[in-house]
Amino acid sequence: MNIRMLVYILGKVLLIEGVLMILPVICGLLYGERQVLIYVLAAAVYMGLGFVISMKKPKNMTIFIKDGCIATALSWVVLSICGCIPFVLTGEIPSFTDAMFETASGFTTTGASILTNVEAMSHTSLMWRSLTHWIGGMGVLVFLLAVVPMAGGSNMNLMRAESPGPSVGKIVPKVRSTAKMLYLIYLALTVTEILILFICGMPLFDSICSAFGTAGTGGFGVRNDSFASYAPHIQWIVAVFMIMFGANFNFYYYLTTRQIAKAFKMSEIKVFLIVIAFSTGIICFSVRNFYGTFEEALRHSFFQVSTIITTTGFATTDFDLWPTVAKFLILSLMIIGACASSTGGGIKIARFQIMFKTIKREIHTYIHPRTVKKIHVDGKTVDTDVEHSVALYFFIYLLVFALSLFIVSFEGHDLVTCFSSVAATLNNIGPGLSMVGPTQNYSFFSVISKWVFIFDMLAGRLELMPLIVFLNPATYKGIIKKPAKAKG
Amino acid sequence: MNIRMLVYILGKVLLIEGVLMILPVICGLLYGERQVLIYVLAAAVYMGLGFVISMKKPKNMTIFIKDGCIATALSWVVLSICGCIPFVLTGEIPSFTDAMFETASGFTTTGASILTNVEAMSHTSLMWRSLTHWIGGMGVLVFLLAVVPMAGGSNMNLMRAESPGPSVGKIVPKVRSTAKMLYLIYLALTVTEILILFICGMPLFDSICSAFGTAGTGGFGVRNDSFASYAPHIQWIVAVFMIMFGANFNFYYYLTTRQIAKAFKMSEIKVFLIVIAFSTGIICFSVRNFYGTFEEALRHSFFQVSTIITTTGFATTDFDLWPTVAKFLILSLMIIGACASSTGGGIKIARFQIMFKTIKREIHTYIHPRTVKKIHVDGKTVDTDVEHSVALYFFIYLLVFALSLFIVSFEGHDLVTCFSSVAATLNNIGPGLSMVGPTQNYSFFSVISKWVFIFDMLAGRLELMPLIVFLNPATYKGIIKKPAKAKG
Repeated sequence: MNIRMLVYILGKVLLIEGVLMILPVICGLLYGERQVLIYVLAAAVYMGLGFVISMKKPKNMTIFIKDGCIATALSWVVLSICGCIPFVLTGEIPSFTDAMFETASGFTTTGASILTNVEAMSHTSLMWRSLTHWIGGMGVLVFLLAVVPMAGGSNMNLMRAESPGPSVGKIVPKVRSTAKMLYLIYLALTVTEILILFICGMPLFDSICSAFGTAGTGGFGVRNDSFASYAPHIQWIVAVFMIMFGANFNFYYYLTTRQIAKAFKMSEIKVFLIVIAFSTGIICFSVRNFYGTFEEALRHSFFQVSTIITTTGFATTDFDLWPTVAKFLILSLMIIGACASSTGGGIKIARFQIMFKTIKREIHTYIHPRTVKKIHVDGKTVDTDVEHSVALYFFIYLLVFALSLFIVSFEGHDLVTCFSSVAATLNNIGPGLSMVGPTQNYSFFSVISKWVFIFDMLAGRLELMPLIVFLNPATYKGIIKKPAKAKG
Repeated sequence: MNIRMLVYILGKVLLIEGVLMILPVICGLLYGERQVLIYVLAAAVYMGLGFVISMKKPKNMTIFIKDGCIATALSWVVLSICGCIPFVLTGEIPSFTDAMFETASGFTTTGASILTNVEAMSHTSLMWRSLTHWIGGMGVLVFLLAVVPMAGGSNMNLMRAESPGPSVGKIVPKVRSTAKMLYLIYLALTVTEILILFICGMPLFDSICSAFGTAGTGGFGVRNDSFASYAPHIQWIVAVFMIMFGANFNFYYYLTTRQIAKAFKMSEIKVFLIVIAFSTGIICFSVRNFYGTFEEALRHSFFQVSTIITTTGFATTDFDLWPTVAKFLILSLMIIGACASSTGGGIKIARFQIMFKTIKREIHTYIHPRTVKKIHVDGKTVDTDVEHSVALYFFIYLLVFALSLFIVSFEGHDLVTCFSSVAATLNNIGPGLSMVGPTQNYSFFSVISKWVFIFDMLAGRLELMPLIVFLNPATYKGIIKKPAKAKG
């Protein structure tokens, strides 16, 4: 294990977090809020500490996949802990568990909240809260890769551990260029959304926070009713932007590099849009009598489908009151999730595509036993390793889901509350059904359940393996055994 | 496709069904019920028809895996349709859909019922209803293999399609001997249970029907309250027998052939018992205040755990009233299911074992990327093909589950009812939660949902693939294309 390198990465992460806190500081100064002092202090400490720790560049910058997992998991834990301290110190979220829940929910782009009154928070804290979505959406290590030069294989192992999807495609040969490219597209789309929302009449503060929440597919809002009280045209705009951030970013890369044909041939985008259209249609039909006009029914259906499949978690209506078929679709969309290489969570469309193709081949071998077929997605052969790891992903996902549900079910809330709260955190969505429905929050859960959710949010965002490797004692076996060997 | 052979097999299946109907006929004669006439008629027609159809042995008895799937699926459909006709003709279940539901539920050893008053049924029909469990438990084709000699590879393809578990082990070199051995053990255990129940004070009719229900892990009872009104010692006995029939039958084979060490080394049996002990413990603790004495709490916990994990579906108490953690465990046990090569349903312990080991290896490769490890269960290497098909099984299972849930959710019942009714039919259990809880039945569902459940019961019993191959249009492509080829 390359411990020097781990420390170096953590230092850089801390430094980045400190720098990011300048944005809420600016916001706090403009609004003249007293909470700004805490943020100034935190930013200074993190920047200083981070700078000192990462001052000395390690000679050996090689990172294997194991170290990549540990670095990623540790970075996210450090990010969450350091990110939650201002909430505690300003007294706005006095409980450490609650503050940690809120911050992990932010960085993992979940958007589940323990706040009962969002509007009582300071602008400074709200800005920080929404900013965590933005940085968590594309990933802090991807950001690090974009700005810090590293050795060839190392950055791939870091990027692979943090990026969502069954196989990380290097869209350009160099990982660093890929990371830069991703962040540029991400930034451009976010700024576009801020401008459009502002022009359409949303206050600037709301526009920035909403765009951060949309871009990271997070879901933290600045109003108690999320998006219900914004104008219909604002809701349409945000719904479309959520889908844009839930799409595979390779699509935008192809577009910016004028590979138009390649962009529009991406089957994942097609499936993504078909699922959205199908679900919106069914839900709109099932809730047609719930709203005054067809536009309203369509808007709420479309908004809720796009907010859930992209795992954002904004809401314009209380879908917990919808009929069973609509609620079932909402739950399914939670689990399906967005595209690979997007900022969204869930299992991801790409994984489902691969599994469907594997099944198709399996049925084929029953009918024609002697043929061996490879699976192709968008003309590219899917590696047997990838195929296998996708199948495993489903199984590990189910295990984590079941184990979390088991622990949470001890609290005695109804099954739908327990099930949907785990689904909403593990898939980084935010709102669930019943007691964690869109008009509710997570404050009533016990400390134990809240830590289960914190684990689920991190596990979901990092796609299980990094966190499992990080927490597995076997990972550290070599380090503890080595001195014993030296003796013998 | 070997159509002659398919017809031959179907003829034999029909013949067997006719012969089996002699048992309810005897029962009806003893009780002097008028319904016996219908059963005499049906038995005669099925025997006659089956005899004529299967009189001519086809020259080519070879069956490939595709034909094995079709033969199995068709046999079970024919079995269910022909089995339900007496219910309709006696007027005891006048609706064809309901009668089909009840019979498919019987043969697939589900035990879900549309009957609101079981005690109003004739003894003749109740005996037939319970007998379907017994024949469905070990399988009609396995029975056929035991009595009809066939070509080497063919019977293996039939047995593989009908028998539960990730890989069918030929416990003795010849498939025919394996089939015979299985049925002998099965018969011996069933007779033992009948005798013990009878000696312990249960009426003979109840003993026979209960033993059929236990042996096939079916769950049809002859009383409206299932097992709640039987004496506590009867409940303990049945609970133990359910576990015995949910165990891998290789265990009994090893015992009867004096390979005691081998029998007690079977890890699947160990895991099975550990899961039962663990669940019973947790549930007993969570319901300790629901019952008067510790014995009662323990008995109900143990009985319900064993009835659900073995997918039998008897009940001694209404577990729908239990706390959430107990209900969650019940739902989990439904999905886990019994051992492979038992009469029980669900995903099966063996599949979970393989998946757990695959995950362990996957984590291992993250830590030591250059090692390639094979998975072993009970000292035997698990084939990569088996490993892969197990992973696929989970995924196809989830798909069938989700699709069924989607259709059923249109009815608008609560999510727990919809979810647990699909879980209870796809895993061949019977009772679920909420509106399909142990004190309820399936009569209120629409015709469409009932057919979805019939599909799920068959899909669950035949472990998905045979039914999917049978219903896939691509399976019949060659047959339709051939004449076109001849023209060209």
